[in-house]
Amino acid sequence: MSGWLAIAGLGPGRDTLVTPEVTAVIAEATDVIGYIPYVARIAPRAGLKLHPTDNRVELDRAQHALSLAAEGARVVVVSSGDPGVFAMAAAVFEALEDRPDWHLLDITVLPGITAMLAAAAAAGAPLGHDFCAINLSDNLKPWAAIEQRLRMAARADFAMAFYNPRSKSRPHQFAEALDILRAECGPERLITFARSVSTSDQTLNTVTLAGATPDMADMRTVVLVGSAATRRVGRYVYTPRSAV
Amino acid sequence: MSGWLAIAGLGPGRDTLVTPEVTAVIAEATDVIGYIPYVARIAPRAGLKLHPTDNRVELDRAQHALSLAAEGARVVVVSSGDPGVFAMAAAVFEALEDRPDWHLLDITVLPGITAMLAAAAAAGAPLGHDFCAINLSDNLKPWAAIEQRLRMAARADFAMAFYNPRSKSRPHQFAEALDILRAECGPERLITFARSVSTSDQTLNTVTLAGATPDMADMRTVVLVGSAATRRVGRYVYTPRSAV
Repeated sequence: MSGWLAIAGLGPGRDTLVTPEVTAVIAEATDVIGYIPYVARIAPRAGLKLHPTDNRVELDRAQHALSLAAEGARVVVVSSGDPGVFAMAAAVFEALEDRPDWHLLDITVLPGITAMLAAAAAAGAPLGHDFCAINLSDNLKPWAAIEQRLRMAARADFAMAFYNPRSKSRPHQFAEALDILRAECGPERLITFARSVSTSDQTLNTVTLAGATPDMADMRTVVLVGSAATRRVGRYVYTPRSAV
Repeated sequence: MSGWLAIAGLGPGRDTLVTPEVTAVIAEATDVIGYIPYVARIAPRAGLKLHPTDNRVELDRAQHALSLAAEGARVVVVSSGDPGVFAMAAAVFEALEDRPDWHLLDITVLPGITAMLAAAAAAGAPLGHDFCAINLSDNLKPWAAIEQRLRMAARADFAMAFYNPRSKSRPHQFAEALDILRAECGPERLITFARSVSTSDQTLNTVTLAGATPDMADMRTVVLVGSAATRRVGRYVYTPRSAV
């Protein structure tokens, strides 16, 4: 049995951000599995079967990928960004827990440029000092736990990156997150909304928390909040290395 | 004047982790500037001047790069990993603060695979849920501030990535960091030491905090500490998406 499973990050959108090792592994694959818009980024070719699936079926998708690899297929699960950051790698290992017979499968994770790194690069260097990454989606955890982590991250004076800040199904929570940040960090703290980062639709908007409104974010937005030391220089935003 | 400055991330070591856009910008450069081992990764060619410099001269290096670009050169400052994560981007913007005459220079930051993402991928998906990145070097900040942030990160139950965990000039502090983590997270918490990640010298070592010793880390090591939910499956370590 020569099957394998690679969990690969396609980066945030721009093709020149896909690493050569990810391009190479896709060229060897028999099957590519992932959320519809990510699989749409893979060029069709003879001998390659594409398996686009809908959102919120991550565990089913992971089981399917493992079973194909167990049958001898060369399978790539594609994620946007980095597969280890709020993406498919954790779902695959979750699915693996239930199947000890698959524990010796050849599984590799190929890192990618995660959205916050591309967003930070576009803005300057707002994550240039200690920072944290928080998923604001409450699909899999209670909102109260997210609020509590936001407060603690602010008190630790991390710069912060938020993934999945706001969706149609939960439009009000991000307003609450902004209220918490204003209370903890004050009105002058810088916040950057980076939408469709690294694509031709990219927009960047840096304001203070006083001027931030919930509609500045949607599901395609990564939000970066500065630490107390984060500031502007010219048209850039950055956090000095010497920040405490 | 057609000079420009690109601050580019070479990734953690493996050539197949260098993004195509970084390879392309280096091909157009007249000057490449950076710490000696990173400049050593750039192939010499006619028309390209290499400027390797020693560690701990980041601000001088940044000023030099800006001045060359201001004179019309096409300059690439190279960092390992991602330039915006404990690397050269913040130093360039720091240097820019003192020179308003350079504020309109064409400066871009090109993201890269930062060490913690490659380390996490090699281990499985330990950063699969909310996490933070902390620089343990006290070159530019007091150690007491680092200790305090460690405590708060543990109480927020972030998974954690530590850069620059230990050096010859400060061998004792990492032992103190481990003591803090044991007190805050308990002895069973998983910790992964990833050394020379993505290179042919790569080693990975996952133990519990009870079994962790300071000599497991050096300057080439990225340290990943799990959250309360982080666990093993087969030969992998991962943090479930449903962690609170």
